[in-house]
Amino acid sequence: MIILDRLEPLRALVDRELDAFLPGETERPEAVHRAMRYSSLARGKRLRPILAILTARIFRGETEEIAPVAAAIELIHSYSLIHDDLPCMDDDDLRRGVPTCHKAFGEAVAVLAGDALLTCAFEMILANGRKHGFSAEALLSVISELSRAAGSRGMIAGQIEDIQSEGKEIDPDLLRYIHHHKTGCLFTASVRVGAILAGAGEKGLDDVSRFGDIFGQAFQITDDILDVEGDSAVTGKPQGSDQQKAKATYPRLFTLEKSKQMAREQVDEAAAILAPYAPASDDLIALVRYLPDRTS
Amino acid sequence: MIILDRLEPLRALVDRELDAFLPGETERPEAVHRAMRYSSLARGKRLRPILAILTARIFRGETEEIAPVAAAIELIHSYSLIHDDLPCMDDDDLRRGVPTCHKAFGEAVAVLAGDALLTCAFEMILANGRKHGFSAEALLSVISELSRAAGSRGMIAGQIEDIQSEGKEIDPDLLRYIHHHKTGCLFTASVRVGAILAGAGEKGLDDVSRFGDIFGQAFQITDDILDVEGDSAVTGKPQGSDQQKAKATYPRLFTLEKSKQMAREQVDEAAAILAPYAPASDDLIALVRYLPDRTS
Repeated sequence: MIILDRLEPLRALVDRELDAFLPGETERPEAVHRAMRYSSLARGKRLRPILAILTARIFRGETEEIAPVAAAIELIHSYSLIHDDLPCMDDDDLRRGVPTCHKAFGEAVAVLAGDALLTCAFEMILANGRKHGFSAEALLSVISELSRAAGSRGMIAGQIEDIQSEGKEIDPDLLRYIHHHKTGCLFTASVRVGAILAGAGEKGLDDVSRFGDIFGQAFQITDDILDVEGDSAVTGKPQGSDQQKAKATYPRLFTLEKSKQMAREQVDEAAAILAPYAPASDDLIALVRYLPDRTS
Repeated sequence: MIILDRLEPLRALVDRELDAFLPGETERPEAVHRAMRYSSLARGKRLRPILAILTARIFRGETEEIAPVAAAIELIHSYSLIHDDLPCMDDDDLRRGVPTCHKAFGEAVAVLAGDALLTCAFEMILANGRKHGFSAEALLSVISELSRAAGSRGMIAGQIEDIQSEGKEIDPDLLRYIHHHKTGCLFTASVRVGAILAGAGEKGLDDVSRFGDIFGQAFQITDDILDVEGDSAVTGKPQGSDQQKAKATYPRLFTLEKSKQMAREQVDEAAAILAPYAPASDDLIALVRYLPDRTS
């Protein structure tokens, strides 16, 4: 977990940026703003913004102005969690160790807080991007990456097929489709956003895209493993919740042992892609290497 | 209704642009794409894109390339309708003369189709905006206007206060707050988007913003009147639905007669703002003048 300790200042920086940009709890409409802050600022690893920032460091020494833009990716992630947890979706009661948004604020506020976080992400990219001197072209590219990753050909495709697969026979192709879309697209977009903001070229963008995609797969496999083996006090989610819903997961399809092996193989593959960029890529490689050992 | 006949080619153009950009019904995930198309391409006036296009005409003779970008505003409107109709919100069964999205496709697909339309709007602005040669600066401004109008300080603020006001005592300030946010913000953003794409200056932007705001108010008052007096076969919504939910409406607060007078006064006020731009503003003025007579 040494890498997480080393990244703690970055996680705290992302939280400060989110806290500074999100509307205050006393600003009207209070319920929606409270719910937006509740879900976005809840305990979390901030992996996606951190991936963007670490990726930017590969291509540019100075990355201080990346965080205020990259932090917005966390808002897209938070929005997706709120909507995924709704009764009509996964119907989950616990998230990040606290009641899910609709449990705490009611369904109407939860739907709207999710909606608002999605638009807020774009507002944050624009406002902070201008303030920190990024070009209009770069910011358009960032918005393009994220809207595509979050859209019906990205995250949403994964979520709907995930719900529809519940309790059904699944095959490895469907499992990969679900996870590539539900999790992989936003991870890939995150590293691409970091690379774009740092002015990476075509080759660099290609490399980090492949890294992001495999990172996403490894993350999802270890997420599925945590659902079986994790401690809900640490994961913040009810243990065995995927199993209970007969969700499409790696352990269900490949056994736990084989899933762990797959995760280790993907971690090696991802690390190899970024090895030529060492030492600038050291933290990114350490981050993907931590995935098989993660406890939350 | 002569103005509507004159604007029919524009309405059809907006529909063609939406049809061309939205993912096809056979593209995976099919259910979400079918729902997106079902709700966006349902019978509708396309008032917001048309407002943007007509506003652009004030500042620039040639506006052919505005429609492919302006049409995206309709996707934001469609998304908001889908989510507003959900059981946890207004719980409506009928919209634009057909079953609401969640009635036709189920709640999970409806939530996700709404989410997807919002991101699709930004994708459409970017893709069509680049294709038609708009500057990155102009497109960022368009995205900024729309994300703010759709966000928690705009449309979402109106929706939550609308829901929370159901069955309660309301005062004119709250009524104006709800309608300004729920309806006015996106109308104002629509005319501003048209003006921005046409390269309007500060004064022009100010004038059309005031016009858009009053247009939105007049639209909402006449919407409330239609809920009382309209024919549901024409409006496409169940008649008396606001009354049944004890919603905050103008007729409820001011009587029907007074509401009609207020609508006429606002129409005059809006028309006066754009009179100096005649004849380029003739269609916009005709459009606002049509509001008190509208039947759907």
